[in-house]
Amino acid sequence: MKSGNLFRNIPAGQLKDELFETLNQSENTLIERIISRGHKTPDHGWCDQTRAEWVVLLERSAELEFEDGSITHLEKGDYLDIPAHCKHRVRWTSPDETCVWLAIHYCQDESPDSSHSKTAS
Amino acid sequence: MKSGNLFRNIPAGQLKDELFETLNQSENTLIERIISRGHKTPDHGWCDQTRAEWVVLLERSAELEFEDGSITHLEKGDYLDIPAHCKHRVRWTSPDETCVWLAIHYCQDESPDSSHSKTAS
Repeated sequence: MKSGNLFRNIPAGQLKDELFETLNQSENTLIERIISRGHKTPDHGWCDQTRAEWVVLLERSAELEFEDGSITHLEKGDYLDIPAHCKHRVRWTSPDETCVWLAIHYCQDESPDSSHSKTAS
Repeated sequence: MKSGNLFRNIPAGQLKDELFETLNQSENTLIERIISRGHKTPDHGWCDQTRAEWVVLLERSAELEFEDGSITHLEKGDYLDIPAHCKHRVRWTSPDETCVWLAIHYCQDESPDSSHSKTAS
């Protein structure tokens, strides 16, 4: 039985990029932990994902921006559901602090889709 | 876009039963928050679920027991993946304190299964 702790085994020091770790994966559902420390999506880049993403911020603060110009500020415990192909970007995360995210990537309809891509375009 | 906070809107006072709230649901994946305050599965009862469950304890402490007699103690951030039909029970949760769980119910294989049952038998 796969097990672990969301708040342990977090690398100390500077992280060049956000850290994505798959915690669990099945045909339709991918569960991942994301660690960010001041990271953001490159300017003018968007995340355009083939699957929907339910995401919760478990530590610290962050801001997401959407293609329609709206901005969502997130504090500890805040979650939201991002539909597939809803372009978004991480606009800001707490600098010098460790943000812990939990993301559930899932298929919105009945057609199984085992692909999982996150592109900044 | 559905949004909320995992640590808000928690009823105060005594809860007769554990509180299950669906946060997000699709064909294959159900995300729910569970609040327990000293609750446990009835003695000699087992949870026998048709789907796998990835579960994390986000606040307080708890113990799960499995049909093979093993016991797993959980602290804040501990997660585990429980296969479908792996009989288990909540043996103990922090009394007089609020346990916050996040559970992801998902299908392990490619056959969509929109049913979701949790029975204590």
